[in-house]
Amino acid sequence: MKQQILVVGGVAAGPSAASKAKRVNPNTEVVLFEQGEYISYGICEVPYYIGNDVKDREKLISYTPQRLEQAKGVKVKTLHRVEEIRNVQKKIVVRDLYRDKMQEYEYHRLILATGSKSRRLGVKNEDARNVFRVNSLDEGYALKKYIDEERPKQVLIIGGGYIGMEMCEALVKNGIETTLLHRGQLPMSGLELETQQAVLQELTKQSVTLRPNDDIRLRTVNEKGSVVTAVTSVGEFSTDLVVLSLGVEPHTELCASAKIHLGQHGGIVTDQRQATNVDTIFAAGDCCEVKNLVNNKRMYIPLATTASKQGWVAGENAAGGRAVFKGVIRAMAVKIFDLEVAQVGISSEEARDSGFNVVTERIVGDSRISFYPGNTKVVIHLIADKKSGRVLGANVYGGGGSVLRANTLGVAIQQKLTVDEVFRLDLIYSPPFAPLWDPILISANQLAKRF
Amino acid sequence: MKQQILVVGGVAAGPSAASKAKRVNPNTEVVLFEQGEYISYGICEVPYYIGNDVKDREKLISYTPQRLEQAKGVKVKTLHRVEEIRNVQKKIVVRDLYRDKMQEYEYHRLILATGSKSRRLGVKNEDARNVFRVNSLDEGYALKKYIDEERPKQVLIIGGGYIGMEMCEALVKNGIETTLLHRGQLPMSGLELETQQAVLQELTKQSVTLRPNDDIRLRTVNEKGSVVTAVTSVGEFSTDLVVLSLGVEPHTELCASAKIHLGQHGGIVTDQRQATNVDTIFAAGDCCEVKNLVNNKRMYIPLATTASKQGWVAGENAAGGRAVFKGVIRAMAVKIFDLEVAQVGISSEEARDSGFNVVTERIVGDSRISFYPGNTKVVIHLIADKKSGRVLGANVYGGGGSVLRANTLGVAIQQKLTVDEVFRLDLIYSPPFAPLWDPILISANQLAKRF
Repeated sequence: MKQQILVVGGVAAGPSAASKAKRVNPNTEVVLFEQGEYISYGICEVPYYIGNDVKDREKLISYTPQRLEQAKGVKVKTLHRVEEIRNVQKKIVVRDLYRDKMQEYEYHRLILATGSKSRRLGVKNEDARNVFRVNSLDEGYALKKYIDEERPKQVLIIGGGYIGMEMCEALVKNGIETTLLHRGQLPMSGLELETQQAVLQELTKQSVTLRPNDDIRLRTVNEKGSVVTAVTSVGEFSTDLVVLSLGVEPHTELCASAKIHLGQHGGIVTDQRQATNVDTIFAAGDCCEVKNLVNNKRMYIPLATTASKQGWVAGENAAGGRAVFKGVIRAMAVKIFDLEVAQVGISSEEARDSGFNVVTERIVGDSRISFYPGNTKVVIHLIADKKSGRVLGANVYGGGGSVLRANTLGVAIQQKLTVDEVFRLDLIYSPPFAPLWDPILISANQLAKRF
Repeated sequence: MKQQILVVGGVAAGPSAASKAKRVNPNTEVVLFEQGEYISYGICEVPYYIGNDVKDREKLISYTPQRLEQAKGVKVKTLHRVEEIRNVQKKIVVRDLYRDKMQEYEYHRLILATGSKSRRLGVKNEDARNVFRVNSLDEGYALKKYIDEERPKQVLIIGGGYIGMEMCEALVKNGIETTLLHRGQLPMSGLELETQQAVLQELTKQSVTLRPNDDIRLRTVNEKGSVVTAVTSVGEFSTDLVVLSLGVEPHTELCASAKIHLGQHGGIVTDQRQATNVDTIFAAGDCCEVKNLVNNKRMYIPLATTASKQGWVAGENAAGGRAVFKGVIRAMAVKIFDLEVAQVGISSEEARDSGFNVVTERIVGDSRISFYPGNTKVVIHLIADKKSGRVLGANVYGGGGSVLRANTLGVAIQQKLTVDEVFRLDLIYSPPFAPLWDPILISANQLAKRF
């Protein structure tokens, strides 16, 4: 029998791992199992499909099962849910959801790429017909269909993280009156206070109402079984549509059957090779914890870039290679209407929790020279360690050019540059693109004064 | 008598040096001499004033002499040309151009920030009334006045470097038929061949005609004393206006009188403290050569960012401080109509000349996800050393987001990252801002295959 590499999960890390494994060792048979109908799609792109920025829903799919088989030589089994790992026998137990039939598959190497699952509200009517999540393509398509067919006038978005922000924009673009229910006084926890305030300001400007609250119940009253009212600690809200964006957690149900170790954030613990504690089993993507290179702590940072890279590494190693994935700094960005918001590295709170002596500074700079047409403001909130001088993190927000500047700071953070070294970076000056003193340099110069 | 710090030159490095010196040591008297009428202006911004992107000409000036005196405590003498340095007596000889009177000034420390001067064509009629250069604010104002008053219909731009490119755009925006005469077959020498080709394509698309040639004479025929024809090796060109953008060279006439060392590119040689070989004399800005941190060679790279930073360092050290300027990587960008073009680090030719074993790759990526509205192509030409794996330079060009990506690569180059390390950078993915595999990562991944 040919060497079998089995991959569980088909969204981001899974196809990446499967393709890489087959490329590294073409003699193996690589089979990918996905419980849903679709594989290899961009879940991050769903809000832009909902918001009509992306019209063609096929664009969200990188590979159909057929194309992945043809292009990469990977066998794909969709609507197949892996329900158990029998590691002693090196077998997985799979339910064919189409035929409702169980079958066993043997493996030499197993790669878990089971992704994440949406956090639940834990209340009645959470699965009512007009309550949606957007953590899979099916869910995205279903929400879009609901909007196009039923033309809701009001929406309650529950959860003010970055998916919640993107959904606010998407739903406002559909002409729907949008109310955001969020546990905190400010959206986007994890960002610095002033950044959160700027986000709230942008939401308000775009007619999204944020209602902080701490206790939500969903009431069904109409004949179709739709939620029409949410009862919260700050009053009742009538609605035609509910979108839950409460964040995600690692999807790791399978792990217990194989005694795979989970970390304190509930994600699979792997080494740099993406190997789990169980010999022959690798893991990649949103089901895993990941090392943050800034504070060397394992964190849960589910991002598609990480999933994709970890997939490569898991695939290569499962096929006999020797690849490593060292970790992330956390590099994320979100467009909130006209506001670009990015975070690189760790927050001031995380830095304090990690034992750093935190010093921060917030500056407002120009994206271009101030009097060049189209110039916008760029705000940088820079976070450093007073003892070593190292830059630990940054929030960058404002108009055009904010997010790409965050990447430049991201490299500096990844390379453990000090504030002084960031100030000495040789950056471009050209009136249409950047002022003589780029906001990055201004932020480092101002932060240096706090040392 | 108070300690005297005298600064020669008032455009970029000079005001920066003078202000810093005064701030570091408020007990000194700092006097700045400038032969022109204006100080502290952005010469890089002149093309945008000519092209009507910047309407208000006052915007080009950061500090008037009065404001620099008030804000920074620096005495400013405009229309004062320093003609000799008597270093033994620690004196400079200055001509007051307004009163046409010579005067001597004593110094404890002297800072030379004499800038650059335009290269000359070396032909008759080069100073005719309709022939302009744009290396000073006076020249920029004069050209703008000429265009507004005389409404030229045709222009010959002579010299296809980056100022030539900016002037092409500026003059086309004035509705003037624009022909570019350039020594090479392609504009922007110093960039990689394909980048130059892309620039030519953009010029052609914007109706700028490039005529390579190697021998230009300017004929005066009309009664006003205006050049109306240029005779070249590729034929005769009639014109109403000539703009010379032949590049600049260090302005160092003063140096001989004090026996200040010049380097092989004709610029002043300084150490990291911006000190010249002559005790008590510092230098900063376009009159200096600068160390390129990529190949550790002294080069002539006149850029405003460098001038400004060197000015700080020279000013601080002249006032008794201990600052250093380590060098540059060369970080430059130019907007050529709809094309963003940036160069960071050294070119493949410079790399070969520096003894590196050069390997390059050129990739075309997307600025955003490919199907997001407003996505544009970003081309990266990455240059590395095969032996060490180090990234040495890059050309980045295309639509929006090209130039700011060059800065991210610039940090990688400055930190001497290898191609593999660039591929491992944790960069942002977010559909409106960057694809899952940022062009930077694609370029490193593809270049790695050439090792």
